[in-house]
Amino acid sequence: MTSIDINSDLGEGYGPWAMGDDAEMLAIVTSANIACGGHASDPETMFRTLEQARENGVTVGAHPGFNDILGFGRRVIPMTPAEIGRMCAAQIGALQGIASVVGVPVSYVKPHGALANLAARDRDVADAIVKVIQKIDPKLALLAISGTQEELAARELGAPVFSEIFADRGYLKSGQLVPRGQKGAMLHDAQEAAERLISYLDTGLMPVIDGDPIPLVADSICVHGDSAGAVSMAREIHQRLSAHGIEIASFMSKGSAK
Amino acid sequence: MTSIDINSDLGEGYGPWAMGDDAEMLAIVTSANIACGGHASDPETMFRTLEQARENGVTVGAHPGFNDILGFGRRVIPMTPAEIGRMCAAQIGALQGIASVVGVPVSYVKPHGALANLAARDRDVADAIVKVIQKIDPKLALLAISGTQEELAARELGAPVFSEIFADRGYLKSGQLVPRGQKGAMLHDAQEAAERLISYLDTGLMPVIDGDPIPLVADSICVHGDSAGAVSMAREIHQRLSAHGIEIASFMSKGSAK
Amino acid sequence: MTSIDINSDLGEGYGPWAMGDDAEMLAIVTSANIACGGHASDPETMFRTLEQARENGVTVGAHPGFNDILGFGRRVIPMTPAEIGRMCAAQIGALQGIASVVGVPVSYVKPHGALANLAARDRDVADAIVKVIQKIDPKLALLAISGTQEELAARELGAPVFSEIFADRGYLKSGQLVPRGQKGAMLHDAQEAAERLISYLDTGLMPVIDGDPIPLVADSICVHGDSAGAVSMAREIHQRLSAHGIEIASFMSKGSAK
Amino acid sequence: MTSIDINSDLGEGYGPWAMGDDAEMLAIVTSANIACGGHASDPETMFRTLEQARENGVTVGAHPGFNDILGFGRRVIPMTPAEIGRMCAAQIGALQGIASVVGVPVSYVKPHGALANLAARDRDVADAIVKVIQKIDPKLALLAISGTQEELAARELGAPVFSEIFADRGYLKSGQLVPRGQKGAMLHDAQEAAERLISYLDTGLMPVIDGDPIPLVADSICVHGDSAGAVSMAREIHQRLSAHGIEIASFMSKGSAK
Repeated sequence: MTSIDINSDLGEGYGPWAMGDDAEMLAIVTSANIACGGHASDPETMFRTLEQARENGVTVGAHPGFNDILGFGRRVIPMTPAEIGRMCAAQIGALQGIASVVGVPVSYVKPHGALANLAARDRDVADAIVKVIQKIDPKLALLAISGTQEELAARELGAPVFSEIFADRGYLKSGQLVPRGQKGAMLHDAQEAAERLISYLDTGLMPVIDGDPIPLVADSICVHGDSAGAVSMAREIHQRLSAHGIEIASFMSKGSAK
Repeated sequence: MTSIDINSDLGEGYGPWAMGDDAEMLAIVTSANIACGGHASDPETMFRTLEQARENGVTVGAHPGFNDILGFGRRVIPMTPAEIGRMCAAQIGALQGIASVVGVPVSYVKPHGALANLAARDRDVADAIVKVIQKIDPKLALLAISGTQEELAARELGAPVFSEIFADRGYLKSGQLVPRGQKGAMLHDAQEAAERLISYLDTGLMPVIDGDPIPLVADSICVHGDSAGAVSMAREIHQRLSAHGIEIASFMSKGSAK
Repeated sequence: MTSIDINSDLGEGYGPWAMGDDAEMLAIVTSANIACGGHASDPETMFRTLEQARENGVTVGAHPGFNDILGFGRRVIPMTPAEIGRMCAAQIGALQGIASVVGVPVSYVKPHGALANLAARDRDVADAIVKVIQKIDPKLALLAISGTQEELAARELGAPVFSEIFADRGYLKSGQLVPRGQKGAMLHDAQEAAERLISYLDTGLMPVIDGDPIPLVADSICVHGDSAGAVSMAREIHQRLSAHGIEIASFMSKGSAK
Repeated sequence: MTSIDINSDLGEGYGPWAMGDDAEMLAIVTSANIACGGHASDPETMFRTLEQARENGVTVGAHPGFNDILGFGRRVIPMTPAEIGRMCAAQIGALQGIASVVGVPVSYVKPHGALANLAARDRDVADAIVKVIQKIDPKLALLAISGTQEELAARELGAPVFSEIFADRGYLKSGQLVPRGQKGAMLHDAQEAAERLISYLDTGLMPVIDGDPIPLVADSICVHGDSAGAVSMAREIHQRLSAHGIEIASFMSKGSAK
């Protein structure tokens, strides 16, 4: 039986402000990437999100981003790779501190926004992040975008790593995402998104917009939860995949990373 | 041979700004209370301070404070005890994250400023902090002001706890500090401060301004390093105590807390 | 013909986060209390809100609060009255700077949250705020809660001042609000709230929960917009008062403050 | 008699942290570029610096920078020109608010650090800043690095503009600064720096490291005050120029900008 994880960025409120519907999403996903105070979140938001994740039996990952609350971590703040590593260490540690209070383990790390995009293409940044994760806890896994420098860095440094694909993004035969703004970049129809994922999970081949389906390795599907439409798509995907006989389960339950 | 620890608040810079002379102080103290990003510090400042502490063989403690950079943690920010505990958890975790990168353990926790004063008198706040520390790591000790609710909370909850006295503050026969602004509140003369400490360490009795010396239990002497005069006093105390045959060593080297 | 202003706290988003539905509310109110970066808002949020206010012909006021984003200005941060005044000056100035870019005047100041409550009862704080407003611009008015120290301070210092009542809060015969948590503190029914306001505007006497209606002076009705229910109540009040022949217009259009 | 202004970046503390010796520098300079809360400063720091400037009769300018306290405004934060303009508007307004409390006018604007470098080379950013300044107050001048896009933008948009040269930086025959890290980039000797400035002020020709002196137009000399050495150089320059018969006076006293 095929098994796949579903992950989403959660706990992205800040003080009195909410972002998306965490309660809804935690009933859908099997892994929660929880903001750590860099691009969003604060001790109380982390606490509430971790409590909800625990109640839903959802695996918890740290979701560090640039220290840029106003920019929501979507801007590249000029920093050296070593500085980026230390920024991540402080954020991961902060989430671990709150997770200790809640009594849930932090199982993996997935960078956010501009930091994720930078780590995907810049090997020095990817190496810095992976090395920091290893120093904090060698069992802490990395959840990386499939086929990126970040995934390669983790494999070569011997860190546990899992890879993700996007439920709502189109792929090119090169394995890259269709750039935003181009035709086919976004999938807006939940059924279409679910069918594409089922096709991929049945065959190991991902449909692309410019050729034949391509082989792609993925342990997790990334879904969004920042709008009502996004939550609906996530729910639809979960239901369709389950109905097709695909097990939805945390990648951590595989026992060991690839 | 009598042994005593000397601790100081360090790593209290912020971004481009420095506070005191950490390099000087790290050659004097045996325990460094390192700010965690609440009242001061940031990942780079934590990193540099932790590296210097490691190079000097100084024991590292987390120094959480109210999340109030502009107020330097000297203002009471209205929060529930549980919120205070979680705020501390995030700060302690952040320092632990950076300490993992540096490769030094975080051995104890000492609250800062307005938070320390609050924990000294408010048992609910003290309990919340101690319980959080225990959840993060049962071996993590508390460094508390001698004779406070904070010290009591740790003892009753079974947490390792060490107590401190102040090198430059006058004591009353009640065991309390002479309130700031009153005659005898501050000791400005380094020799006088050192002689008083030697008298205390020889006899276990602390001279007070309003009666006979009183019994006081202390594992550490708190010295300041935020001015040239403060550094001089700290150095003088270290030298005089050493010359008197008192061992200056981290309280953690005692093996177990009282 | 009776005329009354309707005001609401707006522009209380922060970076990527929204609070309430400003577009809906700006079609209802005649005065917008716009957050200035203290308890909420940032240059982009101020800019968007000011542009929307201008497009709707809504009078703009500055809404300073404690510099406490995480606490949304609902916590009293210990500061001297003079420090509070300067904090307000910087926030009012920041909004004026953006308002110059948009091309709308800032006509009045209304303190927010914990700062408003403090200024309502602490005359030194009220005086400090009023004096700062006068130094920034003697024509800048204060919008104060009716019957408070803040209103008195403005009158005695000769500053233009307007007073407000709350659409959804019960009153006592003392003129005070029914404390939150007590029966009658909140009006949840929009029709009931509108009828009470009409009764007040027709007679100058405000119904109270513990006696006969009392005389109350008000230039503005404060409505909330932070939930769908709040927006509905604000709309209902606007419609009912208009239907009753009451003109809904900015208090600034009166030409001069009382 | 030749007259020249001396300006320096001041008020760059933050909360409890100081930067440089503002009191010393305010006795030397004739124009103070005062940080506005973006890269440094807060209401209390602005207030103290403005009071000191007033007491010393020093002309006040706003010194906006990227909203990046931890990076001290030395990092380019990705923003559109319009966003940069609004960020500057909020900062200039904040300083104006406090200046109203102190009772001193804000006479000019000089961008800081990475923002200054960006405005020097990027015409869209320069235009955005100049247009915002004009909307805030058409009489508000710009203090720009001599020969930059920022200076050109102000001239073409008809804004009052003054230009500055650096006391401690070497120049190339192109009019550009010798890049940091290259030989001749920095002048470390105070006497040499003073002699070069006297030579320039006597002839209008600035000595360069790779050819004959070049014509350069300047209304002000920028000196640093962030170290003891920097303060000494600033004092030496002031004394030597005065002794040579050069009047040290604010460029604003010229009555009108070029």
